[in-house]
Order: sequence, then structure tokens, then C-alpha cells
Amino acid sequence: MTSPEPHGASLENTLHHGGSGTTPAARHHAGHQSWSIADHAAAVAELLQPMRSPERTEMLPLQEALGRGLVEDVRAPISLPPFANSQMDGYAVRSADVPDGGAGLRVMPAVPAGARPAALESGMAAPIMTGAMLPDGADAVVPIERAVPDRFLPHAGLGTEATVWLPPATPGTFVREAGSDVRAGETALAAGTFLGPAQLGLLAALGIPEVAVHRAVTVLLVTTGDEVVQPGQALPAGKIYDSNGTLLEAAMKQAGMEVRRAGIATDDPEALRQLLRSEGAGVDLIVTTGGVSKGAYEVVRQAMADQPADFLHVAMQPGGPQGIGTFEGRPFLGFPGNPVSCLVSFEMFLRPVLAGLFGAPAPRLPLRARLSQPLTSPENKHQVRRGTLGPDGTVALQGGESSHLMHALAGSNVLVHVPAGVGALAAGEEVEVWML
Amino acid sequence: MTSPEPHGASLENTLHHGGSGTTPAARHHAGHQSWSIADHAAAVAELLQPMRSPERTEMLPLQEALGRGLVEDVRAPISLPPFANSQMDGYAVRSADVPDGGAGLRVMPAVPAGARPAALESGMAAPIMTGAMLPDGADAVVPIERAVPDRFLPHAGLGTEATVWLPPATPGTFVREAGSDVRAGETALAAGTFLGPAQLGLLAALGIPEVAVHRAVTVLLVTTGDEVVQPGQALPAGKIYDSNGTLLEAAMKQAGMEVRRAGIATDDPEALRQLLRSEGAGVDLIVTTGGVSKGAYEVVRQAMADQPADFLHVAMQPGGPQGIGTFEGRPFLGFPGNPVSCLVSFEMFLRPVLAGLFGAPAPRLPLRARLSQPLTSPENKHQVRRGTLGPDGTVALQGGESSHLMHALAGSNVLVHVPAGVGALAAGEEVEVWML
Repeated sequence: MTSPEPHGASLENTLHHGGSGTTPAARHHAGHQSWSIADHAAAVAELLQPMRSPERTEMLPLQEALGRGLVEDVRAPISLPPFANSQMDGYAVRSADVPDGGAGLRVMPAVPAGARPAALESGMAAPIMTGAMLPDGADAVVPIERAVPDRFLPHAGLGTEATVWLPPATPGTFVREAGSDVRAGETALAAGTFLGPAQLGLLAALGIPEVAVHRAVTVLLVTTGDEVVQPGQALPAGKIYDSNGTLLEAAMKQAGMEVRRAGIATDDPEALRQLLRSEGAGVDLIVTTGGVSKGAYEVVRQAMADQPADFLHVAMQPGGPQGIGTFEGRPFLGFPGNPVSCLVSFEMFLRPVLAGLFGAPAPRLPLRARLSQPLTSPENKHQVRRGTLGPDGTVALQGGESSHLMHALAGSNVLVHVPAGVGALAAGEEVEVWML
Repeated sequence: MTSPEPHGASLENTLHHGGSGTTPAARHHAGHQSWSIADHAAAVAELLQPMRSPERTEMLPLQEALGRGLVEDVRAPISLPPFANSQMDGYAVRSADVPDGGAGLRVMPAVPAGARPAALESGMAAPIMTGAMLPDGADAVVPIERAVPDRFLPHAGLGTEATVWLPPATPGTFVREAGSDVRAGETALAAGTFLGPAQLGLLAALGIPEVAVHRAVTVLLVTTGDEVVQPGQALPAGKIYDSNGTLLEAAMKQAGMEVRRAGIATDDPEALRQLLRSEGAGVDLIVTTGGVSKGAYEVVRQAMADQPADFLHVAMQPGGPQGIGTFEGRPFLGFPGNPVSCLVSFEMFLRPVLAGLFGAPAPRLPLRARLSQPLTSPENKHQVRRGTLGPDGTVALQGGESSHLMHALAGSNVLVHVPAGVGALAAGEEVEVWML
């Protein structure tokens, strides 16, 4: 229990190296306006922006690039499809050879997928399999089901003197033209694209075996508080189990971060400083939980007292108290101590900023949903509630406003946004939700 | 190029060990009805059901359980919160001591979070921090902002003979009651729950350090076709790069499966059989791509000719041709050869069946969306289109119906469902979409 210390230089010193005093943080400190979610997200982006450097990129084989973000635009080195090919199992024909009423054509050697076929002579039909290259001269495919006979002869018969009757076909029918998906030279994927299965599949289809991506962001995660006990141990009266660490570590891993845990820090500021120094070596970012508010025992505020860090109150509920700055030169974010506040802090500040800077994780898709029940919200704050979005587009709130409701959070699939300026909403009114 | 062989025993032999002939597969074979998505999903579920066994579960520490599904209900061993605690930094009081008009109270020793406080005497107020245990006797908290003075005295003053003026407080104000989130003995998480950050955070809050989960499903993934070339190699005329392997491996990994790749099989059935034997040892499931349709060179059909496997046509576009059965006793699924068909097959059959059996991956949330453009669909099939869902709830289709459009798929964030029986939809009509 030490007395609160004055908390050091302000954010703009960190971010602007002796800046102009006109940053949002400075204005906030001058009391001219409240500190909004957008203000804080911008400050977090500014803090992490230097990580977006060429040194922090790497070339990875496609499978290892899953979940990362593209550094540069990728141009298509070839067209897709690379050549005109058949969309069906059937017969490749010159459409002029099958006029109205159809025609009987002689059957050429079959075209399996993967082969370069001989040119199609006039009056002939070439058995062709899905994906196989269209012979020169052919401009349409008649599906096998429409031919007479409607199945390929036993392979001994393919390419012999058999004939087939085919209905009329207009040019281009069941032909996938070269470049109809993407043309050589076009941008196939833009810089900042999140690489999921479909994006990696496209790179493979283009023949690209490896790709330049941003490195994973490494983080030291420290939960603080004399009241916090590791799960699995006995729980003395007045203490609670640490869920912040588990919750945030999992959320960060899901977002592609590499997480280092440093146990639970006590409420001794000097011990916390030692821990940040010894465990934080080499990480990109330090994230703490707890100890950032206005109580009498705020260990993170105290430990950061001589560091260029700000302790602010974002106009958001829950998750208002936030720390931001550097600890001995290393980027630092101080999240509040309640688990729901921690997750909301991560989802509102760290996750979208990482998505914006590095293309990964994938950003949350904002959706509109109708409230299944009324709610109230403090008008001067942006409220983030938890809810369950149903297939019919309605969202049911889970738990109340309070930030300790882990069970309610575990039953939710969306965050529900109630912007500042809104004091109440009726059932049936629309809100923005983010899928978790 | 070998001639098509008759393709062995039918599915019900695999699934029912000489079953009754009344399975959907049997009815399908008898030609009484078409084989629907639901029919095939049920057949896949029946094929994989034996994997849901006690031998295929394991106890894991919470962090390693991320992305797995719970084997059994988890009951709360303690209540959350474990004890009544303060929602604010402020003063714990007996509400009777602060009647209308408020009162001046003597200040007791402070209650930090984590401590067991002394009982609150009548006429006293105890400085209390957020999350700290409410002293016996106290039934309300007055936030520090509403007190006079409105900040805690320097720590030397805490617990001395100071007094504080407090406004009236009704019982329960700013108190989080014990068990208000979950009560000891209640089901905290149900069997089959997907373990994401919030669920793991809840287990940690309950003090539970490890949890019984279903083992990851291991899969041998084999892409087939003489026409297919590994990305990074030169591309001869008529050939294409293998994107199925990359696409499906990434999708399976995202879904928590452990994937073994076995390169690209040629169109030689005996070589494929050898490969499935040598590489498939120990896996839970074999998945192939390509070679399941009605063309003349269908290597997977041919390799499975003497195995209890069916090759069916699901009434779905794309992804109609499907193989299902066992290869030398090992569950087998044969997906079609086009990348979009592969992904649709995975999303319609394998992913939801795994989610249903093992609680992982998390199921796709179905949502309603309005089409931004008209579409047509074959009335006898369920069509699965790709699209981009916007925040306003409209979905724009990406690419056409064709299953080769990887670039269009890479720009999509949802699958768009057009059920069988629907031949056309106008712009503005509602469809079901699944978030990818």
C-alpha cells in the first residue's frame, strides 16, 4: 500500500517526442472535451504504428501464412482459368457444326483434364472432361446428359469411329474462358488482406507458393492484484480467481498474437516494474490488467509513475479506465481489472488497431440487429453490452451493464453498441452489433 | 486410363453392418427420391459418430483447450461473484445510516480488494475499492464521486478519525451480490460448448484449471488429378495449380482439425490405394478431392471400387458429386474437384457435422440478408452462392454460379443459400447467409 504518485509525462511526449500539445490526449488533459473511443483507438494506432515496418515482415509458405495479413498487393502472375476449359463432362464442338435441330458428329479422341488436346476438326466432337482444355477450334461444350447416347462409351470406344447426336449449342456454352476469374497482371489480393482459406487457395491457384506477411505481434500479458488467485489453487475469503489472464490470452491467440504470460503481479509497484523489465525483454507490447483506475491502490499507475504514460477515462462503459504509453521504451496498454472490461478493451482498441495496421486479425463485421428488449445507457458514454444474435436478426441482451458478468459473456455471440448520446432504446429499435 | 469398375457395396453396409435397406442412401439408390443436403449431412454424421467416444477425449489446461468442445456439462464449483463486493470505488455503508438528506459518517479502515474486512459498525463508512468484499453489516456502496470530500484522503488518513458526508443510498446500490452471475451447483457450461476466450475465461473465474475436451480430428487430405501441379512449379499447357489442397488444409486447420497432406495423387487408382494405405495409417478420416464424378477418368471412384463406399449426387450446386464410405475400415469422404465445390462441401457437410458431434468448430451463425441483385437457381437443387454481406444487411453476390471462381470466393465473406424449389429471387428478397 503506497501513496499515489504523480503519473509522469503525458502521452504526447511518447508519441510526438516533445509534441505540440494539440493531440487529443493534450486536449483531453486540458479538459476541453471528453476522451472518446475513437480518440483512444487513434492513440493506440499511433503507439503501434512503428511496428508496421519492413523489418517486421517475413516470407512464409502458404500454410504458415494462415491468419496473417498481406504486406503488399499480389498481382496475378497467370490468368485464372489459365486456358479455356470445359465446365461439364461432355463433348467439345464447333457450335457451327450443331445448327438448329442438332447434328450427328464423329467422335474424336477424348480430352482428359491435364492434357493438351489436338485441334478439333470440323464435323467432329471431342469427349471432354470437366476442367479439361478446350481443343483449338472448339467454342462450346454439350453436356453428356444431352447427347445421344447420353454416356461415354467404354474407353475402348473413345476416339474410334463412333458417332454421337448432339443438340444445338451456342458459342461459349459451358466454356470457362481464360481469365474469366482473374486476368494475369490484375491485383489478385490487396495489401492488408487477411489470409484465410479462400485467400490462400487463390494464391495456390495462381501458383504462388509463399507470401510476404506481417510478423505476429508478441505481447507480455500481466494480470495484477493482491486479490487475484491462479485457478486450481484454494480461494481465501475476499479473493477471486484470475480470469482476465485466461480470457485475454485466448482472445489474443485467436487474433494471431504470440502471448507471453508472467503470472500474477502483486500490488507492489517496484515488483511490477522488475517483472515488466525481466519478462518484457523482446516483446512488441506490454498489456496489463487492473490497477489503472482512481482507487487508493492502483499498482499499474504507480509502477508507471516515472514513465511516459497516461491514465485516461474513455467515455465507454464498461472499460472506461485505460492506460497508454511506454514502459522503458516499450509500448504499453493498461486495461481495467474486470474481465468483461478487459475483453471490451481488447475488442474496441487492440483488435481493430491490429487489423488496420497489419491486416490481421480479420476485422469484426458490423451488423444491424433489432433489440428484443429495451435498454438504458449513460448518455455521456458509449455503452458496450453483450448479447445473443438470433437468425431472425434480433439480439437478446445477456446479463446487465455490469462488467463482472462472465457467465453472461460466455453465453453471448455479439457485442451490442449503444453510442454516446443515447440514453434509452425500446424493444425493436436497431443497434450495431459485432460478431464475436 | 482404366475402365470404370462397378463401385462396390453401398453405404448402409458400412454404416449398419448389413443394415435394413431403409437408410436414405438405400432409398436414394432405389430411385425413390433425390439425395438432399440433409440426407448427406446425416450420412456424414453417422459415419463419424463412432469417433465420439470416451477414448477420444482428453483433459487439457485451459489455454490448450482453446477451440475445442466440452465433453460434459461443467457445474459451477463456486458462486460468481464468490462474495458480495463493491461495484465502485467509494464507501461501504449501512443504508439505514444514510437516510433522506444524507449524513456524516466516521471513516473506518479502508477495504482493499482481496482482503477480508472487519464488520462495519453502525454510524461508520468503510472506504472500499472496486471488487473488494463488502464488510458484514454493509448493504450499499456510495461512489467516491458523490461523497464530500469526493476523493480518498492520502493513505495516512485512511482509517483515522476523519468523517465523510454521504448522500442517501438504498439497499443493494452498487453491490454485486454473491452468485448474481452464476450460483454454485448451476450448469456453467453445457456439454458440447465451443471453448472460446469467454468460455475459458468463465472456467478460470470458477477456479477450474483444466477441462475434458474432445480430441482434435486428424485427417489425411489427398488431392487427385493428372492435371494438377504443385504451386511454385512450372505450369505445362492444359494443367492447373492445386488450390484444393491449400484451401481445404487451411479451412480444416481453422476448424481445429489436424491435417496430414499426401501430395497430389495421379489418376492411377492402384497408386492412390497405396497412398491411402501408407499415409492414412492412424488418421480418423480420409478426405480426397476430385475423381468422384461421372467422367471417364474418376480415380477416386476407381480406387474405392472394392470398398464399401457410395458415390452419390447431392441435390446441391456446386458440390453435387460426393463420395462417402470407408477405405479399409477408415472413414472416407470424397469431395469434388473444383475449389469452390471443395469449400462448399466442407462447409455443408464436414464442418457442421464436427460442430454437432464434438462442439468444435463453432457452428456458422445463419443470418437473414437482402439480396442486392436478382439471381436464378436450378429449382431441383439447393444452390450455394458466394457473397459479401454489408453492414446494412444486404448481400452482393460475388462471381456467378460457377465453381471455378476462386478470385470471387476470396472476395466473399458469406455463403448465400438458395433452397431447392426456388428458381429465381429478385433484388431485395431475403436469403439465408452463413458468415465465413
